Amino acid sequence: MHTPAPTSTCGPAELELIDAWWRAANYLSVGQIYLLDNPLLREPLAAAHVKPRLLGHWGTTPGLNLLYAHLNRVIRDRDLDALYVTGPGHGGPGLVANAYLEGTYSEVYPSIGTDEDGMRALFRQFSFPGGIPSHVAPETPGSIHEGGELGYALVHAFGAVFDNPDLLALCVVGDGEAETGPLAASWHSNKFLNPVTDGAVLPVLHLNGYKIANPTVLARIPEPELADLMRGYGYAPHFVGGDGAGGEDPMTVHAQLAATLDAVLDDIATIQATARGGGATVRPAWPMIVLRTPKGWTGPKEVDGLPVEGTFRAHQVPVAQTRTNPAHRALLEGWMRGYRPEELFDATGALVPELRALAPRGTRRMSANPHANGGLLLRDLTMPDFRAYAVAVDRPGTGSSSATGVLGGFLRDVIAANPDRFRLMGPDETASNRLQAVFETTDRAWDAETLPGDDHLAPDGRVMEVLSEHLCQGWLEGYLLTGRHGLFTCYEAFVHIVDSMFNQHAKWLKTTNHIPWRAPIASLNYLLTSHVWRQDHNGLSHQDPGFIDHVVNKKSEVVRVYLPPDTNTLLSVADHCLRSRHYVNVIVAGKQPALTYLTMDEAIAHCTRGLGIWPWAGTTDGDPDVVLACAGDTPTLETVAAADLLRTHLPQLGVRVVNVVDLMRLEPDSEHPHGLPGRDFDALFTPDKPVIFAYHGYPSLIHRLTYRRTNHRNIHVRGYKEEGTTTTPFDMVMMNDLDRFRLVMDVIDRVPGLGAAGAVLRQRMSDARVAARAYTREHGEDDPVIAGWVWPEGG
Amino acid sequence: MHTPAPTSTCGPAELELIDAWWRAANYLSVGQIYLLDNPLLREPLAAAHVKPRLLGHWGTTPGLNLLYAHLNRVIRDRDLDALYVTGPGHGGPGLVANAYLEGTYSEVYPSIGTDEDGMRALFRQFSFPGGIPSHVAPETPGSIHEGGELGYALVHAFGAVFDNPDLLALCVVGDGEAETGPLAASWHSNKFLNPVTDGAVLPVLHLNGYKIANPTVLARIPEPELADLMRGYGYAPHFVGGDGAGGEDPMTVHAQLAATLDAVLDDIATIQATARGGGATVRPAWPMIVLRTPKGWTGPKEVDGLPVEGTFRAHQVPVAQTRTNPAHRALLEGWMRGYRPEELFDATGALVPELRALAPRGTRRMSANPHANGGLLLRDLTMPDFRAYAVAVDRPGTGSSSATGVLGGFLRDVIAANPDRFRLMGPDETASNRLQAVFETTDRAWDAETLPGDDHLAPDGRVMEVLSEHLCQGWLEGYLLTGRHGLFTCYEAFVHIVDSMFNQHAKWLKTTNHIPWRAPIASLNYLLTSHVWRQDHNGLSHQDPGFIDHVVNKKSEVVRVYLPPDTNTLLSVADHCLRSRHYVNVIVAGKQPALTYLTMDEAIAHCTRGLGIWPWAGTTDGDPDVVLACAGDTPTLETVAAADLLRTHLPQLGVRVVNVVDLMRLEPDSEHPHGLPGRDFDALFTPDKPVIFAYHGYPSLIHRLTYRRTNHRNIHVRGYKEEGTTTTPFDMVMMNDLDRFRLVMDVIDRVPGLGAAGAVLRQRMSDARVAARAYTREHGEDDPVIAGWVWPEGG
Repeated sequence: MHTPAPTSTCGPAELELIDAWWRAANYLSVGQIYLLDNPLLREPLAAAHVKPRLLGHWGTTPGLNLLYAHLNRVIRDRDLDALYVTGPGHGGPGLVANAYLEGTYSEVYPSIGTDEDGMRALFRQFSFPGGIPSHVAPETPGSIHEGGELGYALVHAFGAVFDNPDLLALCVVGDGEAETGPLAASWHSNKFLNPVTDGAVLPVLHLNGYKIANPTVLARIPEPELADLMRGYGYAPHFVGGDGAGGEDPMTVHAQLAATLDAVLDDIATIQATARGGGATVRPAWPMIVLRTPKGWTGPKEVDGLPVEGTFRAHQVPVAQTRTNPAHRALLEGWMRGYRPEELFDATGALVPELRALAPRGTRRMSANPHANGGLLLRDLTMPDFRAYAVAVDRPGTGSSSATGVLGGFLRDVIAANPDRFRLMGPDETASNRLQAVFETTDRAWDAETLPGDDHLAPDGRVMEVLSEHLCQGWLEGYLLTGRHGLFTCYEAFVHIVDSMFNQHAKWLKTTNHIPWRAPIASLNYLLTSHVWRQDHNGLSHQDPGFIDHVVNKKSEVVRVYLPPDTNTLLSVADHCLRSRHYVNVIVAGKQPALTYLTMDEAIAHCTRGLGIWPWAGTTDGDPDVVLACAGDTPTLETVAAADLLRTHLPQLGVRVVNVVDLMRLEPDSEHPHGLPGRDFDALFTPDKPVIFAYHGYPSLIHRLTYRRTNHRNIHVRGYKEEGTTTTPFDMVMMNDLDRFRLVMDVIDRVPGLGAAGAVLRQRMSDARVAARAYTREHGEDDPVIAGWVWPEGG
Repeated sequence: MHTPAPTSTCGPAELELIDAWWRAANYLSVGQIYLLDNPLLREPLAAAHVKPRLLGHWGTTPGLNLLYAHLNRVIRDRDLDALYVTGPGHGGPGLVANAYLEGTYSEVYPSIGTDEDGMRALFRQFSFPGGIPSHVAPETPGSIHEGGELGYALVHAFGAVFDNPDLLALCVVGDGEAETGPLAASWHSNKFLNPVTDGAVLPVLHLNGYKIANPTVLARIPEPELADLMRGYGYAPHFVGGDGAGGEDPMTVHAQLAATLDAVLDDIATIQATARGGGATVRPAWPMIVLRTPKGWTGPKEVDGLPVEGTFRAHQVPVAQTRTNPAHRALLEGWMRGYRPEELFDATGALVPELRALAPRGTRRMSANPHANGGLLLRDLTMPDFRAYAVAVDRPGTGSSSATGVLGGFLRDVIAANPDRFRLMGPDETASNRLQAVFETTDRAWDAETLPGDDHLAPDGRVMEVLSEHLCQGWLEGYLLTGRHGLFTCYEAFVHIVDSMFNQHAKWLKTTNHIPWRAPIASLNYLLTSHVWRQDHNGLSHQDPGFIDHVVNKKSEVVRVYLPPDTNTLLSVADHCLRSRHYVNVIVAGKQPALTYLTMDEAIAHCTRGLGIWPWAGTTDGDPDVVLACAGDTPTLETVAAADLLRTHLPQLGVRVVNVVDLMRLEPDSEHPHGLPGRDFDALFTPDKPVIFAYHGYPSLIHRLTYRRTNHRNIHVRGYKEEGTTTTPFDMVMMNDLDRFRLVMDVIDRVPGLGAAGAVLRQRMSDARVAARAYTREHGEDDPVIAGWVWPEGG
């Protein structure tokens, strides 16, 4: 079944050198996991030299080191521009070791020098309080990929090479990670890669056979089945190692791997040359490698009578009682000395010159590749003037437009002006979300088969649509982390699919904010549309506005949430977000035609403040009797309509309407950089008057953001309370008590002294709800008087 | 490439009848999407007969109807016990149509009779206010699968057949859904299916070629590549339709499909007979079908000059202006009359007898299969007495044990006592989470290859481990929905991977609570461990306690959250959850050795109340000066230690310690069934004294749950604030200001009148923090005095 070994261009002497680098990286990896001192084993290993808490993962590390060593050869030979994406992020010590061997580590962390003291510090800091994490992490030079939650290595690698035609991303996929859903789907990314304008991903499926406590699925299916699977995913698999004929002999594997790397890189070069010469007519079968090596290779074969190397027991720390058990300590010492450190490092502790020479030069080192510190390469977007897309608003609340529909025109021109650094991602919903104007300038990226009648499919399309939120998010993350820009549009309910991916990216942003050598990257921008209030046609399963709640749990320094109430505010917010850096911006906006309220100048002023009074909608310029607050387009509509009802029926009542665009303004300024100072908040929301707050999402979030505010006890929030089905838009808001009639009733219930007039109006509102529901049930659509409501003329 | 058509046992006359059933189902599907009246087209179609809002999805429906019609034949022929799992849940009208044709619909919804009036009501209610959802939904008889978010059809089907050896789950996988991560991974479920004791899943990959606006990936790769993919996933693919040689001719496809169904069911029978006769030694290649039919088959070929049938334009409503545009209406009428309803329904509107005879009998009807209403089949677990696993607690806070370690023994015996109806799911973490006692009685389910040295792998294992939270969750959902029990253990941070799956399941539970014919099922139980406070060795990426926040956004009638502080409380909570019905229970508990506080009798009393005063930990039986509240094991440890510091250093201070197990007790009783009445809350937390609340998760949740409480303005919460890395346990709590020293400082800052003694103690606490951090940074472990702290003797 194994691919016949191609002839290696790499001779035995060079393989010996590669093996020596590998030994050095393995030595440094073990040292990081275990040692506090005596880094070069100049003296016998004593208990005091060993860390008291052993935290790290050895199992995957030798395989990662092996690939790193071999990649360096081909980078030098072929002058490759290469990234190393490490799926098995547990292998932190390995990537740190290689960055150290390449010199990069000491360049970015001068306290970790290339001598014995530096090595001691390198060892000590690993998984040590005040030191560095045990996983591949933002702190690791050369990484764009956090080694925490598994599943996203391959999408990150593809995201990195999009629009980087000269870049090669080697992507190690662990066989544990390969069991995850996102990874299983992401093999299909090759149908979205353009061999002309994108770079190449070389996946290496690393079968070390075991997870934490179990064998892995792909290591335990027959090799022909695995080859079928990879061919079915569209790859040409090459097998290295593990065939019983020397699969565990390092020099045999070195020779196989070197030859295979030469072969697959030749294949990639041919594919690219053919495509770029105009000769490609069908999607190529890109090469990939299946590497089968023992878990914890070169580690202890057996500990306390149980096999370790090549089993799940090698996953973390193969020999654990190295402080208290002299036999364990001897095992560790023998293991480390087996790498022959005296051949690898000189008297000062520096790597010997013939091994130093194996590292590529400068930014060709994978640990120093600027693509892995994308902010260095980031170029501003060329931005069309968003004001040019403004809709005319003669009088507030009387005209209507589709906010995302108008945004589509703006995005079209952003795409056109930035053909090499902006992509739009979405799970098959770009047109559904009314952004179809983008197809006037570009297509959907597609390198699979096409048929007559297909709609805007092309290999170089800037819109990426696949029915996988995971892939959309992962591709965009990889694209952003390598210094480009983008926007992910998603149905609001289904963005929860990537809750966990968002977590990891937000944590990456938070951490890199505090790493001086990491340059800021473009923000991760979400446009959540087809939102909860307009899922009346899809029903309850499509209704969930909770992503916002999830987002605001993350550090305030990296998260922003915007709820533009109409078209011009959406344009202003979108322009701001696309220009911003190092945030996660969540924008929620509707796609259906909806009332417009603000002219572009007003919209800019309103969005700049983040929230504000809408004087035209209220009934008083002075101190109000009640504040109607709103955030989100549907709540704004209902609030403005409620204010109109109050103006008409209770003209003596002083009503103030406050609209909130930037949700984080509600938090105290001590909690969020956008937070409104207490005095300003009190000036808007009053210190003591009832506030009826109509909110887009779950009501609890408004309480959570405002619980420290002076007037919090008077804030009464309406929002989504998990009631819904397939029905009409107005029935949806009624089911959740967010409708205009209910808001008026809330005002009457909370403002004292409204007397008989209040009671009469309350009954009218209650009757109006009953009538509205009856109309809907009879006619199957909303009462046209309600659905067609606009702000009264002259209002 | 096509599988040579096997000889059909189904003659032309029978195929004609199947075709007639198919036409009837298609007719009823179109009728549901479009018609308010004139259901049998007794008169020419008028505008008033058509719904004003057309909400539904036609595209996938004819394919679903085709399969349903053919399945019924083989169910009758072979007396199969079969479920129909519909991945393309948009096809709601099709599944409703078939349930109606089978008579089930009228049985469970008597207002929808099997006559013309019934048909009118059937049509009207679909996607109509007050009616039924447009997707396959809990309201759909025969469904265990919500047709909202895509990706989970295949895992649900596998979950359904586990431990149901006689059950066949036909599972339609849409080619859109097939692009999702969870679906891509779930093909590998066949490595976890035991052909002896489990039933069979027959996947049908339905290539109708298009999503909303795009072609699908799997429809646009060469068929040999697709066959490789399916073989790589371990299946034997059979191709039906779409070969250009009549692929769109119904009778040709009928013959192909009938013959293929006979062939694959023969294969399944052979596989099962071989395995059950003891003859199987290797994992079988289960058959699957690739069905390629046009999207919107039999619908309008062209509308307004654009092709519709066989394109993405057939996705929803192929012809839309049927009220206002007479040409569109004529197209609809012609389309519906093309099914020849007069041949299908008699003068009363009832299905003609020769078609009625095609439905299987009674519970053999897929729409009436009791497995799809699992509560009907639910049998209580045989429960060992959890008290027998209690750890001895002589004095609170002086002994220690691993809570999950002890729970493992209880779960072992639950598994042993319920070999046919309980499974434990977890992503490769059962042993990591200290539940390894379960392997004393069972193994991990595994039907892939094994090697010498493998640890507890067997085809009939009750523990399901795969490195995919999606698969764990999906299998368990399918298992529960068909009337069984289970528990999903997960790292706390990574359970966010299934946020969206949880959403859909919680919505299912909420909806079925209000459907009289749906019987309650067993609760979905999560045990979240390896939690945020003990991810000190894995670091920031593994630290996120926000799943609780996500869960409490769902309806209070279906969600429960428990934070047992020690071993005996965990046992009590786990027993309660495993016995409960129709909830989602989230239990958060640590795996590391930790202090025990309560005897089993005390634990039962405490868990029954859900929260309560721990008198031994406080310093007063009367009105306190301050309340120290805590929820979660680590916060409880720090709180009890803080109380000890206060007792020692400020003995005059009246301290009350309140521990919360059942988080929902904090909410008002108006908000949650477990909510504590206001008076009781005030009695515990006082109306006016400072409350320092140490909480397991994000502090905002405590504010959110308590903001309506009398004393809310005095509640000061400490919890996780997104600070962490690879460090020590105590450094983790210090980084987040949850440590005992900080809690004492909080008390001093908030209790007035502590004077000089307070100031002195505050400085000592501040110094202690500095010293603790210095110790940790120097030694790499926590100060043993802190780490070894226990409640003082006699306390």
